[in-house]
Amino acid sequence: MIKTHFPFPADGQIRAVIENVSPELDGGKYPVKSIVNQTVVVSGDVLIDGHDLLGVRLLYKHELDKDWQEKSAKHVGNDRWKAAFTVEKQGFYSYYLEAWVDHPATWQHEVDEKIKDGQKLAVELMVGEQFLSEMAGLAKGEDKKELQKAAKLLVDPSRYEEATFFCRSEQLHNWIEKYPIRKNTCRYPKRRIFADRAKAEFSAWYSMFPRSAATEYGKHGTFKDVINLLPRISELGFDVLYLPPVHPIGHTFRKGKNNSVDCQEGEPGVPYGIGSELGGHTDIHPDLGTLDDFKLLIQESAKAGIEIAMDLAIQCSPDHPWVKSHPDWFRILPDGTIKYAENPPKKYQDIYPVNFETADWKNLWNELKNVIYTWAGWGVRIIRVDNPHTKSFGFWEWVIAETKKDFPDMIFLSEAFTKPKVMQQLAKVGFTQSYTYYTWRTSKAELIEYMTELTKTDMKDYFRPNFWPNTHDINPYQLQSGNEPQFLIRYFMAATLSSNYGIFGPTYEYLYHAANPPKEEYSDSEKYEIKWWNWAHRNKLTYIITQVNRVRKENTALRTTNNIQFCEIGNDQLLAYLKTSPDGNRLLFIVNLDQDNIQGGILKVPLPGIYKSETESYQVHDLITGAKYVWKGQDNYVELDPNILPFHLFRIEDLH
Amino acid sequence: MIKTHFPFPADGQIRAVIENVSPELDGGKYPVKSIVNQTVVVSGDVLIDGHDLLGVRLLYKHELDKDWQEKSAKHVGNDRWKAAFTVEKQGFYSYYLEAWVDHPATWQHEVDEKIKDGQKLAVELMVGEQFLSEMAGLAKGEDKKELQKAAKLLVDPSRYEEATFFCRSEQLHNWIEKYPIRKNTCRYPKRRIFADRAKAEFSAWYSMFPRSAATEYGKHGTFKDVINLLPRISELGFDVLYLPPVHPIGHTFRKGKNNSVDCQEGEPGVPYGIGSELGGHTDIHPDLGTLDDFKLLIQESAKAGIEIAMDLAIQCSPDHPWVKSHPDWFRILPDGTIKYAENPPKKYQDIYPVNFETADWKNLWNELKNVIYTWAGWGVRIIRVDNPHTKSFGFWEWVIAETKKDFPDMIFLSEAFTKPKVMQQLAKVGFTQSYTYYTWRTSKAELIEYMTELTKTDMKDYFRPNFWPNTHDINPYQLQSGNEPQFLIRYFMAATLSSNYGIFGPTYEYLYHAANPPKEEYSDSEKYEIKWWNWAHRNKLTYIITQVNRVRKENTALRTTNNIQFCEIGNDQLLAYLKTSPDGNRLLFIVNLDQDNIQGGILKVPLPGIYKSETESYQVHDLITGAKYVWKGQDNYVELDPNILPFHLFRIEDLH
Repeated sequence: MIKTHFPFPADGQIRAVIENVSPELDGGKYPVKSIVNQTVVVSGDVLIDGHDLLGVRLLYKHELDKDWQEKSAKHVGNDRWKAAFTVEKQGFYSYYLEAWVDHPATWQHEVDEKIKDGQKLAVELMVGEQFLSEMAGLAKGEDKKELQKAAKLLVDPSRYEEATFFCRSEQLHNWIEKYPIRKNTCRYPKRRIFADRAKAEFSAWYSMFPRSAATEYGKHGTFKDVINLLPRISELGFDVLYLPPVHPIGHTFRKGKNNSVDCQEGEPGVPYGIGSELGGHTDIHPDLGTLDDFKLLIQESAKAGIEIAMDLAIQCSPDHPWVKSHPDWFRILPDGTIKYAENPPKKYQDIYPVNFETADWKNLWNELKNVIYTWAGWGVRIIRVDNPHTKSFGFWEWVIAETKKDFPDMIFLSEAFTKPKVMQQLAKVGFTQSYTYYTWRTSKAELIEYMTELTKTDMKDYFRPNFWPNTHDINPYQLQSGNEPQFLIRYFMAATLSSNYGIFGPTYEYLYHAANPPKEEYSDSEKYEIKWWNWAHRNKLTYIITQVNRVRKENTALRTTNNIQFCEIGNDQLLAYLKTSPDGNRLLFIVNLDQDNIQGGILKVPLPGIYKSETESYQVHDLITGAKYVWKGQDNYVELDPNILPFHLFRIEDLH
Repeated sequence: MIKTHFPFPADGQIRAVIENVSPELDGGKYPVKSIVNQTVVVSGDVLIDGHDLLGVRLLYKHELDKDWQEKSAKHVGNDRWKAAFTVEKQGFYSYYLEAWVDHPATWQHEVDEKIKDGQKLAVELMVGEQFLSEMAGLAKGEDKKELQKAAKLLVDPSRYEEATFFCRSEQLHNWIEKYPIRKNTCRYPKRRIFADRAKAEFSAWYSMFPRSAATEYGKHGTFKDVINLLPRISELGFDVLYLPPVHPIGHTFRKGKNNSVDCQEGEPGVPYGIGSELGGHTDIHPDLGTLDDFKLLIQESAKAGIEIAMDLAIQCSPDHPWVKSHPDWFRILPDGTIKYAENPPKKYQDIYPVNFETADWKNLWNELKNVIYTWAGWGVRIIRVDNPHTKSFGFWEWVIAETKKDFPDMIFLSEAFTKPKVMQQLAKVGFTQSYTYYTWRTSKAELIEYMTELTKTDMKDYFRPNFWPNTHDINPYQLQSGNEPQFLIRYFMAATLSSNYGIFGPTYEYLYHAANPPKEEYSDSEKYEIKWWNWAHRNKLTYIITQVNRVRKENTALRTTNNIQFCEIGNDQLLAYLKTSPDGNRLLFIVNLDQDNIQGGILKVPLPGIYKSETESYQVHDLITGAKYVWKGQDNYVELDPNILPFHLFRIEDLH
């Protein structure tokens, strides 16, 4: 027994070391993300003392599969090894790299060097015989017989020439690859990747208040009214219809028009003041219809290629059933009252926040999971979560993992407009998509910097942006003057910079812009009142939305965000970017960020990115206007008049 | 019992999250490094849902201490928190951050906002009373009484004004800080840092073959001869004397002069062909003296302020005792012979490499540890490890950790000239210092890029460079012509870019440069023969070495490597850098990289780095030549003639 301070490692004969595996998020603490049918490239540094050759393999499996699958990894330089696998179904995959000293390969390399040097082989052939016998033990059928024969050949002195020829053969090389003798194998810890369905990465959201869906002025809109609007939403080309909360609204401290604390009789209240004597998060506001009506809306939407996204706002009106049944889920003050929401000196007496530090947290978490499962039971597979950054990270990590076990197709959108690291953390703990700072990134430099952060840093592996030019909460400064080119610019960039995007309509397409300066919010907001819209109205915005959504569906390069490459263009008001996909789809976007003036500049087309040389001509085909131009080489002049159309959406096409 | 797929976390009430802690190496897999008395700054992202205030603390302790010590962390922006502690003794420290929701601090902030808004406090005072009572429970003596009194004050309606005044007081703020109510505390996993003694970061190495130490021509030098050279080494200013292996040398396939396979009778052999009938790694070559002589050398060196560094080369001559006693520690071939070292087609029949895949690895590791412990028993505390990259990483990790438990002052220098990630890995698994690519970095761009990698990336936390312009194995191209300015340039940069450096002497200072082109090695190398040197000789090199080592000892800015900052100077042949230390020592270095021509240029002094404004005059004092100049502002002209002196070593001094 050897006396030591530290225990010997489990297997001190292991010589290979694996480090710095990618993708890997926070040392494996959180899973990364992918989409079904995507290829996941796994790489790692694999080190070995001395000069022996290494065998390196990638192992992976879906959580529901029994067996691990293997891929050989290749050395790509500087001790970096790479292999790839395709995620074929939704859910969690695990993967890891393993490495071992490949003694037969090392032996073959050394024997080759000695033969080239004219050395006579002797004991080397006996070593080879041992390897071949061992490989024969791993093989079956014909291979086994051939390997056994080859083993004998090596130690037959009468066939020395044949044996040395065989030692250097491609066939032996292939056998060494096919029957690896893995001993003292180093295994990197398992990492996880979640494979989402395609919509997690490619979606166009339309957001509206169902209570404003009525065609008759002054009436409370219903789910049936929304069903009548499906052809319009479909015509515009959206595939997600997101509705703010559809539950009973509380009465106590109900807010009136424009967030007034003096609510008048008959005012409808804020859908976020959830819960009344009629029920809470698993109940439907009767003015919108019945649960059956809502289910019908889900079904009819599906027929139109549209999914319904519900809104999960974990907060309660004082009238919510949980307040009576579980007062300990809230913060109870020394005087026995429940602490309402406040951001001192502001008070929100109509809202009780849930207390995630409650001792009864397990029941609370389970009830919230029950809300999600109830909605899932109705057929809902997309949930926009309201202010997830005011609920604990640990809860989200648990409830999202839990939900995805039963509903791997569930999509969670994080509506967190807060500090950067908090937004990132929500994506790390499992949110499928995330709202972003796009709404406030307006200059060329800001847009490029932000897109680069999203698509070229670690964020690309776990944070899926969803770009919104407006929301029902945000009427950003650049839209408050109602300038049509500005609405076109902000819409076009949202829909083409990011593969996930959305608008709050019909506010957006009808250029509604009344604000309460200096706040970035709508005056007469639909959050506090019912609006009447002329849903039949069509304009330039609706036309462009229809065209852009059509182009998005027809061009694979628009189905992902991380494929963006910005292009040089000598004008700070012109933003140019290229998106390409492996199937050869090449799209070039140029946007005039100046809503008022014609802007022109020399665009430098990144020729390698479009597979063209400096002397080759190619066609750029504007998929919105239909215009076609023949360009040649890198430098091409572009000019955009915002009052005609402030952007080009070119497809690069070969000339034959 | 709630049925779930995933278990609930241990404590779901925890809301704080800690991420991205620094320093941290490979997710905590390896310890980082520091030096006794250095301050370790620990930072991390600390996140919380919502707007509650956080309490964040750093906890740390030495491995031999019982209690954890605490420091408050401060928010430094963007959710980043920072705290620092000083490592006070050698050995491993553990540290971690912890965070919790600071409810009393949040309450004080909210109460303050309400009072400013003119709101009347009511239940808020009751809440405050609860916090103060709880804090009183944590306090003792006078504080406890004061807190109890304050608790009563808050709920005394007759003293409302006084109570609200107290709520906003600095005193209450300090109490909240002093008696934190920590509940649902998030703890980041413990990380480790090793505190080395000062020499780990600040050392000047002199390397020589003791068998060449004789003053009489043709005689085998001895440890006693080396003792006689100590005054010379001390005069030059070195504080580490590194000797290649001092063990018995094998006879079988012994190499002769210039690595000849035809060794002549009487040739001394290569010290790296370790082991004979006279013993192995724990025995002394009798021609050098006895073990007592060696111990005397260690003692006499210590008196001269010099430490002896031994050379650990884990390899054996065929005559080494281990070959007989433990043949299974080597690779035994099918014909019963032991595999000698080869790099096909090259053969090294005089060397048997140790097989780290041996089944008897535990005994092998333990015997190698025994070698180190035997040397430690002789008084050795510095070991230069020969080719550590051809022995397994796992072994080094274990044996270094093991050794440092008993000898925390042991310094291991990794002599690995190999691929970048392998060199990094050796530093990660525990080597105190590392040889580097400095030997081959000669242009201004290469030097800046390499220094930046070493001092501004993660490497700064674990990889301590030791710069060598030559070694007994490497006679780099730039020195092969024997150009004196070139020897000065390469020496000066090694000694001032890096706080650890060394030379192979007297080869270096005597400008010996005979080479075997195109190889970067010495012809008639001392590895294969005994040399005779005129040790009494002094020249320009020995003068400069003496001066530079004196300046290194007198100026704290030269005691560390990571404090380097390169300066703009408009000439590709001029390299300029600034090193400063917290005590105000400011050194400015300018080197002419052109060995043949005078070079001049405008140096841009980084004024903030030397605490000067554009209009202030300051003195630059050349600590080698004694020259003094008065400079003003950023731009100053510098000119260096390589044949006079190819560098300036300026101290920035205030003018009074």
